Amino acid sequence: MDDTRLQPTPLQADELRNMDGYWRACNYLAAGMIYLRENPLLREPLQAGHIKRRLLGHWGSDPGQSFVLVHLNRVIKQRDLNVIFLSGPGHGAPASLAHSYLEGRYSEIYPDRGESEEGMARLFKLFSFPGGIGSHCTPETPGSIHEGGELGYSLSHGYGAAFDNPDLIVTVMIGDGEAETGPLATAWHSNKFLNPARDGAVLPVLHLNGYKIANPTILARIPHEELEALFNGYGYKPWFVEGDDPDTMHQQMAATLDQCLDEIHAIQQRARQGGDLQRPRWPMIVLRTPKGWTGPREFGGHRIEGSWRAHQVPIADPASNEQSLKRVEEWLRSYRPEELFDESGRLVRELRALAPEGPRRISANPHANGGALCKALDLPAFADYAVDVVTPATRYLSPTDVLGQFLCDVMRRNMTSFRVFGPDETSSNKLTAIYEASQKTWLAEVVESDGDGGYLSADGRVMEMLSEHTLEGWLEGYTLTGRHGLFATYEAFVHVIDSMFNQHAKWLEKAKRELRWRQPVPSLNLLITSLVWRQDHNGFTHQDPGFLDVVTNKSPDVVRIYLPPDANCLLSVADHCLRSRDYVNVIVADKQPHLQYLDMPSAITHCTKGIGIWDWASTDQDHEPDVVMASAGDIPTMEALAAVEILKALFPDLKIRFVNVVDLFRLMPAADHPHGLSTRDFDSLFTTDKPVIFNFHSYASLVHKLTYRRTNHENIHVHGYAEKGNINTPLELAIINGIDRFSLAIDVIDRVPSLRGVGDHAKERLRDKRIEHLHYAHTEGIDSEEIREWTWKG
Amino acid sequence: MDDTRLQPTPLQADELRNMDGYWRACNYLAAGMIYLRENPLLREPLQAGHIKRRLLGHWGSDPGQSFVLVHLNRVIKQRDLNVIFLSGPGHGAPASLAHSYLEGRYSEIYPDRGESEEGMARLFKLFSFPGGIGSHCTPETPGSIHEGGELGYSLSHGYGAAFDNPDLIVTVMIGDGEAETGPLATAWHSNKFLNPARDGAVLPVLHLNGYKIANPTILARIPHEELEALFNGYGYKPWFVEGDDPDTMHQQMAATLDQCLDEIHAIQQRARQGGDLQRPRWPMIVLRTPKGWTGPREFGGHRIEGSWRAHQVPIADPASNEQSLKRVEEWLRSYRPEELFDESGRLVRELRALAPEGPRRISANPHANGGALCKALDLPAFADYAVDVVTPATRYLSPTDVLGQFLCDVMRRNMTSFRVFGPDETSSNKLTAIYEASQKTWLAEVVESDGDGGYLSADGRVMEMLSEHTLEGWLEGYTLTGRHGLFATYEAFVHVIDSMFNQHAKWLEKAKRELRWRQPVPSLNLLITSLVWRQDHNGFTHQDPGFLDVVTNKSPDVVRIYLPPDANCLLSVADHCLRSRDYVNVIVADKQPHLQYLDMPSAITHCTKGIGIWDWASTDQDHEPDVVMASAGDIPTMEALAAVEILKALFPDLKIRFVNVVDLFRLMPAADHPHGLSTRDFDSLFTTDKPVIFNFHSYASLVHKLTYRRTNHENIHVHGYAEKGNINTPLELAIINGIDRFSLAIDVIDRVPSLRGVGDHAKERLRDKRIEHLHYAHTEGIDSEEIREWTWKG
Repeated sequence: MDDTRLQPTPLQADELRNMDGYWRACNYLAAGMIYLRENPLLREPLQAGHIKRRLLGHWGSDPGQSFVLVHLNRVIKQRDLNVIFLSGPGHGAPASLAHSYLEGRYSEIYPDRGESEEGMARLFKLFSFPGGIGSHCTPETPGSIHEGGELGYSLSHGYGAAFDNPDLIVTVMIGDGEAETGPLATAWHSNKFLNPARDGAVLPVLHLNGYKIANPTILARIPHEELEALFNGYGYKPWFVEGDDPDTMHQQMAATLDQCLDEIHAIQQRARQGGDLQRPRWPMIVLRTPKGWTGPREFGGHRIEGSWRAHQVPIADPASNEQSLKRVEEWLRSYRPEELFDESGRLVRELRALAPEGPRRISANPHANGGALCKALDLPAFADYAVDVVTPATRYLSPTDVLGQFLCDVMRRNMTSFRVFGPDETSSNKLTAIYEASQKTWLAEVVESDGDGGYLSADGRVMEMLSEHTLEGWLEGYTLTGRHGLFATYEAFVHVIDSMFNQHAKWLEKAKRELRWRQPVPSLNLLITSLVWRQDHNGFTHQDPGFLDVVTNKSPDVVRIYLPPDANCLLSVADHCLRSRDYVNVIVADKQPHLQYLDMPSAITHCTKGIGIWDWASTDQDHEPDVVMASAGDIPTMEALAAVEILKALFPDLKIRFVNVVDLFRLMPAADHPHGLSTRDFDSLFTTDKPVIFNFHSYASLVHKLTYRRTNHENIHVHGYAEKGNINTPLELAIINGIDRFSLAIDVIDRVPSLRGVGDHAKERLRDKRIEHLHYAHTEGIDSEEIREWTWKG
Repeated sequence: MDDTRLQPTPLQADELRNMDGYWRACNYLAAGMIYLRENPLLREPLQAGHIKRRLLGHWGSDPGQSFVLVHLNRVIKQRDLNVIFLSGPGHGAPASLAHSYLEGRYSEIYPDRGESEEGMARLFKLFSFPGGIGSHCTPETPGSIHEGGELGYSLSHGYGAAFDNPDLIVTVMIGDGEAETGPLATAWHSNKFLNPARDGAVLPVLHLNGYKIANPTILARIPHEELEALFNGYGYKPWFVEGDDPDTMHQQMAATLDQCLDEIHAIQQRARQGGDLQRPRWPMIVLRTPKGWTGPREFGGHRIEGSWRAHQVPIADPASNEQSLKRVEEWLRSYRPEELFDESGRLVRELRALAPEGPRRISANPHANGGALCKALDLPAFADYAVDVVTPATRYLSPTDVLGQFLCDVMRRNMTSFRVFGPDETSSNKLTAIYEASQKTWLAEVVESDGDGGYLSADGRVMEMLSEHTLEGWLEGYTLTGRHGLFATYEAFVHVIDSMFNQHAKWLEKAKRELRWRQPVPSLNLLITSLVWRQDHNGFTHQDPGFLDVVTNKSPDVVRIYLPPDANCLLSVADHCLRSRDYVNVIVADKQPHLQYLDMPSAITHCTKGIGIWDWASTDQDHEPDVVMASAGDIPTMEALAAVEILKALFPDLKIRFVNVVDLFRLMPAADHPHGLSTRDFDSLFTTDKPVIFNFHSYASLVHKLTYRRTNHENIHVHGYAEKGNINTPLELAIINGIDRFSLAIDVIDRVPSLRGVGDHAKERLRDKRIEHLHYAHTEGIDSEEIREWTWKG
């Protein structure tokens, strides 16, 4: 056990004194942000009037985080390192804000918060103030790529940033509260996917702060042996820095950081020069400090430092309680601000000298403003991958299989800036072609049987782990540092990352709308596949197309949803998404063989418009239609086309207009979404008074949610998934949810006035067809031969 | 290391032979389900016509699971144990189905699949067949409380089942794929929350099957030392059973299971008789077997057993390929079905004797049909906790604080069947009163400072861990075994469990609609708090009221959403939810002080109706209104009332009707949801032609999604969260999203024909008010004094 704690004292006395001074300055600023609205340098005795009217903020983890930041500065300078820092603990922004302010970077971006007494006062005032500075490391925070409002993703973000950045050291500070979340608990295994030759290093610092909001943390309350075993088990070499005496802790931390960086360097050398790609035991640090370290030890009969009471505002009422005021002043003065800041209010020169310079500053490292480093992908011409479509709807192909060919060449041309992510399903999702360009990253053990189709390699660029959380986190970290990727996942289980999506969309929205200094980053591309309508044997649990509802709740500035109906459309959409910036693009496309409709020129036109009439499937040429048949999604489109075919045979004079939607936000009013159609365009497609039968991929209500303001809304009748399913054949599932050809045709007969009565007999027959098919499926176990032969014929 | 593997051979030769026979019978049935539609006992040579037309199913993990089940039977009988089994690995149902069929339980429930040749043929046919038997342990599976269609929740479900069931042993088989998920990775820490005196035992069996769909698994590919360290680190004592020779493995498994049960017994004895509540090191088993164990070793030049190729159907084409057919027959006959089943097709007597009897059978254990054991909560009269409301809207109170008093007494009266769950936020969410009845469960270390307000105890019944996944999993396991609970969580982060909610709702729907033998279980109650409108310092990341969209996509049979506007309504709603069965009840109620509106009798009436006119806030008495002001949610209701007050002052003759919605599904048409209002009732509340200004808690589009078919829908104008936020005062946040009193009043002026023109000056002033307030908030950091004083006065 003892070999996990280091005793040397690498810091000289003056270095130690200066580093402690720098740390005191950080802590002073953090506390100042929570308490002061005036008198920022305590040049007058503290008075109630100097205290903010509402005390908001979180003190607990700040001193520990600042401690790590100060020590990182030392090694960055000493070793000329390229380091970014991710702040995992909740509400820990004061540490990062203080650090970036002392490095001058904060004032470069926000000149109204300059390095002066006034600037400091303004920084203090704006912190946790309406319209001001957040208490997480929001996009506004220089040097941040991880806000951490929701806990659990710091480590996967960190690994994502490190991939393909061989010179980067990503320090991830992990809160011991955060460490209890599932996503964090499994993200430790990311070390099985980090290639020491090609990728950068991740240095996790687990901060055993001891308490969460109101509870002790699990990892702080298990014996040392268990803790050490746990991280050995995760494959790390943990180094422990534990205590509360600043001088001792500075020496320990400096020695430990040196040790870790030496180990990282040695690992990288072995891999890069020695070619040793065995999975190394990467170092990590366990930093155990009291919660609210250096704050008041006790107050009002309660222990503060080292208890959950230090989580937010340690002393609550200094504005109204003389004793509290005195204690806060004593605490703030314990940092000796007069030694730290010069006359103008700027950090004194000898402390400023401790910070790295220019882009080596953690707060100014360009990797944390990834758009600044981002290069566009070198994309092959997607049209070269086109599928021949001579006659629409005659050929079956797996759209994702075709996409895989394209992605294979995207990968080949971008072998340091593009990765594909998927939870053990890349092959299942028919993207197997990608492995020809690059295999799956794997640094855990391999055995002989892996050789046969396993596609495993330390150099692989396809990232597969059975954790949607980790994959999404990796991809977020990868794109926020300026690289490109695509995450393919089963539709039902994309809900696993609903909350991560929400948080990433919020980040993009803030960065894009409000922060001109943040350069646009590559979009986060989600390919939703293994769709609801083809769950022949997976059953009910695999049927949930509701992620689209979650997506439509986010800002129109950053979300896009595409439902390409066939392979050529999918290629066109994918190309568009891979070129885009600052969006979350959701592409819905299935892996099973589906009918193909459009040749490539038509597909490009269709996808560019995002919505359009398919003349070849319509019967209303040069006429006002009797009915509009609309569709979005693959199976819904096939069924809608088949319904048209049925209706054509039954009612040759019926004027049917067929509309297909690729870009779902076309349905929204132009005032509500930048992709929204104008009223005129929408009305010219959907008419102002004719029945519209809309066959939809997801829950029907989503179409209503998007179109409720449209002129003809009351005539729009949507068919969609109705939460009915089991082990079903595709057509059976369509029938029980009412998106099948028969149900659609019946609906048309019911809605078109001229067919009332006339169509009664036909309706009867169509109902019989539905029953016959269900009977056939339950007897034979497959879609009826008739249906399998009889698909839509254009 | 060696001490983690046991060598004794506890099984006598005949016992070993019989157990192996039973196991072969399981394996035979599992393989039969995948392949055979006729000739189930292979009484004729296998022909292509006997093979199913579509081969669907997953062979990979079945033999390992069956192996554990057979061994569990031995100890259940030998020790008279009460055991349930949760199947974690994906698509592992054939093992559980075979086991329940051999125990006779399956045929008791599904007599068409009797213990006979015909019954077996039907079981085989229906497996993975349209409308038939799923490949997960769906609700249809006897003995299952864990479907496992989505991976990651088996272990938390298992712990949930064990809480307060001191005599129960919950065996949780965990797939090594599943083990990579975040929720599973942190669920291991549940052992810090299991009290050996009061709770049952959980015996995790990690199945190192080696491969997922197409990849090796991480835990199967780390060195033994790391694996052992990992589980030591998690606080377990792992026992390893590894190999592939059946006889050796049977002896190892029997010895290991004996060892584990002895340890469990000793731990429980120490706690129950010795009073030792120190956290024990619970045993667990690591079972390493080849994937597809006992299946074909090789075929077609590929390794099958022990490779990912054994995941689903090991040999794909026996119906069309003579060689494949031969190999499948050889494989099936290797289990020697003729020795296992008698003339009638029933398991031979000497093997049947191995199974426990009656409710001791894993497939018939009543804990896995928890409704059968469920007792109603002993609830105090909720009206006794009523808040005095003499004049509406004059008093501020925290609704959840009041709820906490009620829950405290619910807890007191139900100290073995009720628990409250929350991620480190029970106190933050103002439910602190509960601790008076019971503290927080905590079996990790405690230190001195915990004593001061820590509320920690091994006997606690409040479950707090910073993992929404684990808490939700515990609660699901707890309710599915017939006990009651409530999970309180921050609104924004309930999205973390979107997917778990989806899966649980699907389970309830199937169980409730289709399975009469499953008794109703207590509802899963989710209290969504720390709401979007009060995020004064948490900021944008904590603002997401979109969980309601996810909920509304699920079956109306099982989901309910309540937005009680004040404390008395919250009490009434909570009482209703705690009495209900088979629902997911979502209660939206904030923790901050809010205005109180209804005395208890009015609250009961209002909540019973779920929607209603508040006469005291309306000005349309005995008249047709000019406008309907509607609200759902606390802050939206306050702002809507304040808007009415503004309008009353400005336009004394204006007839305003005030409608408040508690039960959100009242808005849906009666045909679509059992709580939906009839057209007549809806129209009589909302009129058929007057403007309706609806101030809504969540995203505005959700109200449209629910009401788009209503007569007056085109006049319904909804204000809701518009994804705009930062650090904001409550009123500022309301203003920037347009749900504030001023915006509402302006909207009324715009929509009521008689106010057009007349109201222009007023609109101007109201716009100024908005700007003034924003200015004040950005200067002073709080809501303006005027607003703070001037709340709605009834």
